[in-house]
Amino acid sequence: MGPRLGANAYGKAEIRVVKVTRGAERHLLRDLTADVTLRGHFEAVHVDGDNSGLPATDTMRNVVYALAAEHPLESLPDFAAVVAGHFAGLELVELATVRLREQPWERLDAHAWQRGAGGTRVHVAEAGTGGVRHAGGIEELLVLRSSGSGFSGFDRDRYTTLPETEDRILATIVTADWDHAGVPGEDAWAATRDTLLRAFTDHFSPSVQFTLHRMGTAALEADPDLERIHLTLPNRHHLPYDVARFGIDDRGEVFHATSEPFGVIEATVERNR
Amino acid sequence: MGPRLGANAYGKAEIRVVKVTRGAERHLLRDLTADVTLRGHFEAVHVDGDNSGLPATDTMRNVVYALAAEHPLESLPDFAAVVAGHFAGLELVELATVRLREQPWERLDAHAWQRGAGGTRVHVAEAGTGGVRHAGGIEELLVLRSSGSGFSGFDRDRYTTLPETEDRILATIVTADWDHAGVPGEDAWAATRDTLLRAFTDHFSPSVQFTLHRMGTAALEADPDLERIHLTLPNRHHLPYDVARFGIDDRGEVFHATSEPFGVIEATVERNR
Amino acid sequence: MGPRLGANAYGKAEIRVVKVTRGAERHLLRDLTADVTLRGHFEAVHVDGDNSGLPATDTMRNVVYALAAEHPLESLPDFAAVVAGHFAGLELVELATVRLREQPWERLDAHAWQRGAGGTRVHVAEAGTGGVRHAGGIEELLVLRSSGSGFSGFDRDRYTTLPETEDRILATIVTADWDHAGVPGEDAWAATRDTLLRAFTDHFSPSVQFTLHRMGTAALEADPDLERIHLTLPNRHHLPYDVARFGIDDRGEVFHATSEPFGVIEATVERNR
Amino acid sequence: MGPRLGANAYGKAEIRVVKVTRGAERHLLRDLTADVTLRGHFEAVHVDGDNSGLPATDTMRNVVYALAAEHPLESLPDFAAVVAGHFAGLELVELATVRLREQPWERLDAHAWQRGAGGTRVHVAEAGTGGVRHAGGIEELLVLRSSGSGFSGFDRDRYTTLPETEDRILATIVTADWDHAGVPGEDAWAATRDTLLRAFTDHFSPSVQFTLHRMGTAALEADPDLERIHLTLPNRHHLPYDVARFGIDDRGEVFHATSEPFGVIEATVERNR
Repeated sequence: MGPRLGANAYGKAEIRVVKVTRGAERHLLRDLTADVTLRGHFEAVHVDGDNSGLPATDTMRNVVYALAAEHPLESLPDFAAVVAGHFAGLELVELATVRLREQPWERLDAHAWQRGAGGTRVHVAEAGTGGVRHAGGIEELLVLRSSGSGFSGFDRDRYTTLPETEDRILATIVTADWDHAGVPGEDAWAATRDTLLRAFTDHFSPSVQFTLHRMGTAALEADPDLERIHLTLPNRHHLPYDVARFGIDDRGEVFHATSEPFGVIEATVERNR
Repeated sequence: MGPRLGANAYGKAEIRVVKVTRGAERHLLRDLTADVTLRGHFEAVHVDGDNSGLPATDTMRNVVYALAAEHPLESLPDFAAVVAGHFAGLELVELATVRLREQPWERLDAHAWQRGAGGTRVHVAEAGTGGVRHAGGIEELLVLRSSGSGFSGFDRDRYTTLPETEDRILATIVTADWDHAGVPGEDAWAATRDTLLRAFTDHFSPSVQFTLHRMGTAALEADPDLERIHLTLPNRHHLPYDVARFGIDDRGEVFHATSEPFGVIEATVERNR
Repeated sequence: MGPRLGANAYGKAEIRVVKVTRGAERHLLRDLTADVTLRGHFEAVHVDGDNSGLPATDTMRNVVYALAAEHPLESLPDFAAVVAGHFAGLELVELATVRLREQPWERLDAHAWQRGAGGTRVHVAEAGTGGVRHAGGIEELLVLRSSGSGFSGFDRDRYTTLPETEDRILATIVTADWDHAGVPGEDAWAATRDTLLRAFTDHFSPSVQFTLHRMGTAALEADPDLERIHLTLPNRHHLPYDVARFGIDDRGEVFHATSEPFGVIEATVERNR
Repeated sequence: MGPRLGANAYGKAEIRVVKVTRGAERHLLRDLTADVTLRGHFEAVHVDGDNSGLPATDTMRNVVYALAAEHPLESLPDFAAVVAGHFAGLELVELATVRLREQPWERLDAHAWQRGAGGTRVHVAEAGTGGVRHAGGIEELLVLRSSGSGFSGFDRDRYTTLPETEDRILATIVTADWDHAGVPGEDAWAATRDTLLRAFTDHFSPSVQFTLHRMGTAALEADPDLERIHLTLPNRHHLPYDVARFGIDDRGEVFHATSEPFGVIEATVERNR
């Protein structure tokens, strides 16, 4: 027999929705990028060219804006669940995933902001026949330690030229996602983010792997609602620049920050049930 | 009990290796970006900070360049397998994945090139105890049809504003990956790429989904060594620009090309065994 | 006295306009990105908040699409001049600049294309009281030579560590712009592009500077309508990777392609009047 | 006569230098990207292929790291002047420009940081026979106002469809550069940045132009050492999303943030001498 359709999904990506809630004294701002993904009974669309019942991705966009207008948006998890629930209620849909990224803004005054620090907040709600599952996450969290990090004792073979060091710069761009057992409150995300930041610096780091595991463990220990966390820590290498060859006293203070190649370390830390 | 380490992997990304093979009459050029990923017995690294036996990612970089110097690089699948096999032979490693992207260059003369068209070639070799598995792929293949594409008969509800059309621009950036049953030859990739290009245009497209399925089916039918292909076709919307409101005869020839939001359609087509 | 307004300009950038001309046998495709910039009597707008007579940038967008619908678009210089001329005719405007970039598409069949090679075409028309002036240009033209390039005899001081070489890879991303004395025809751009490509490779290159000067000179010699050409050639370094230290016979065939830092060489070549 | 060499320059871009100054109680971190550009007597290099006396761009890189090792880096303007002065002292060089961008880091503890808010600091020192001239600047300063901004009274013609509004979102990414009459202290930059932020929000904005002029005027008024400031304010449009068509009470709170096309408003404000 011929080839057959396997797993499939479709949706709308990069829906840029900004909501200003106009309080009497000051405005609230939500700057979101939404991705909607649907899975379901779409065989006829692929195989027969029969679009009956297929929600258009343009409609998904309209829905996100419409529901953003109706929803108070005080809780991102609640909004994500409402949007995912809407799509899960459509006839052909089995599973609807809504992924929100929130761009950080730091308040300047009652009605003005500048782009903030602290990484991009991510929240994912997945709605299907089994209810709604929630996942949080973070992107673009750049962090750097200038002390308390080394790398030694690793394998050496004929291709190994890296010297051992007990003092290096550790710099990374944290990407993480984690599963909630229940429905997270609005403040859960910032708490997990702060836990990750603390755990990035509260120990001597013998490797990115060890620090990653430390961060993941700390996040699970701090919030009993977290079931699992996956972390990706690229190793943005800062290489000591040899200035002794120019006749300069080399105190090991100057580094060449490189963008490529880079190490990639990723792992999941999960509840031990 | 406390949290435990789950699935984990690490490696080196964006290793930029260029090889010039200096033939008597003309040079050959391979412009590769390699990502190496290892999985294995790395619990002690994460949990105990014990790096014994851990291959450094810096060593991975050295290995890629060293093996590129030794290997004729006439066959990309063979080179990928050699590199993956090297890492699979290390003590703590269970599975080694080497992902190569080849930047396309178009020959200008015997020793000069300009960046070429036709997408970025991808080849992945995965080496473990079960031998080496091969996968191909393509990225950044931009294609556009100005005829033979429509979208109608889809679901309409209170949020639907998209008009039906029997004549639209269909533009996408093809990303695909496919599994080989055996070891592909050097020419297999270009054959699959050409099949995908032909299948993009050889039919009336009632939806991106239908065209995706047609492309996947064509690829499997053309090469019996392909077991499965996964395609992602973002729908880069080209919206008709209403010029009638300016008193101009609107022949439907002018479009607003948008970058966001965009549709994302993805599916796997596989052998029906 | 207090600060005063100096030079100022405003406009609309990244107007993405695609035109499909539906011929009986085959379609023509123009994929353009337009930037419109106006200069003129806009002091009151800046200083007094008086917008009288100010063309909105949203209107500029509408104009580009409207004129694209009316214009046959067989000649890009002519279209650019028409659009610039429109804006130059507005009351407060002294100088209107229209910058078009054309994304390259390579024909697959009568109604389908894939993204092409050869760089992004640029055309600029500037309309003011003195008529229309035309400038051409190119962006994102990646070229590489694997032979016939060296770098030696340069200055050496205590900070110099670069070895001399008579055989290196020369890789760059050409950006160029040039002024026309008259009104260029539709084919002038491709001719200049081809001249630049030939002049990139037709000599031994002792430096990027020499090759840049050679390219500029060749362009002016080939087209008497060109008055001046400005070239920017970043030196995308390909560093020999030392594999001898791994006990491998180093034939100098393997290079590490770097993205940063990079050399930047730029110069103007002009008619000697 | 044939074409001749006109204005020319060359240098090294994207030199990524990080300095950690290890104080007893806490570290200081400088994360810089340096661009070096030289102008001078380089005709023979371009025309004759004679590299005598030419400083290699690789040497420029070494110099930046070497001087960073020697310099305390407590004052960015001073460091920039030292580096520019070094190059200005070379035989063929007439003018040396050093452009530094400082990536913002926010302290987490004595030895750790996360990427900070507030834009990228820029400092340029230009050294030639007339001494050293200093310029400051800022990049990537994203700001947004949700109140106190309108756009009305602008020109309307047959192509105008934009409605007038007295209440819109004003969002921009500030890029600015300014000339110092003297040598700025280390704190001058933050003061100008803060002035720009305050002046972005302290008035009703009838246009981006008016706000730009207000910001530039405020900067010159706040620091008598500033001679001239050039601002570029792209108008990152936030379009009201029409949700009334879905039967929803439209309170004008939901916006579609667009990335293209965008308005570009730029102007110089200078001392009125």
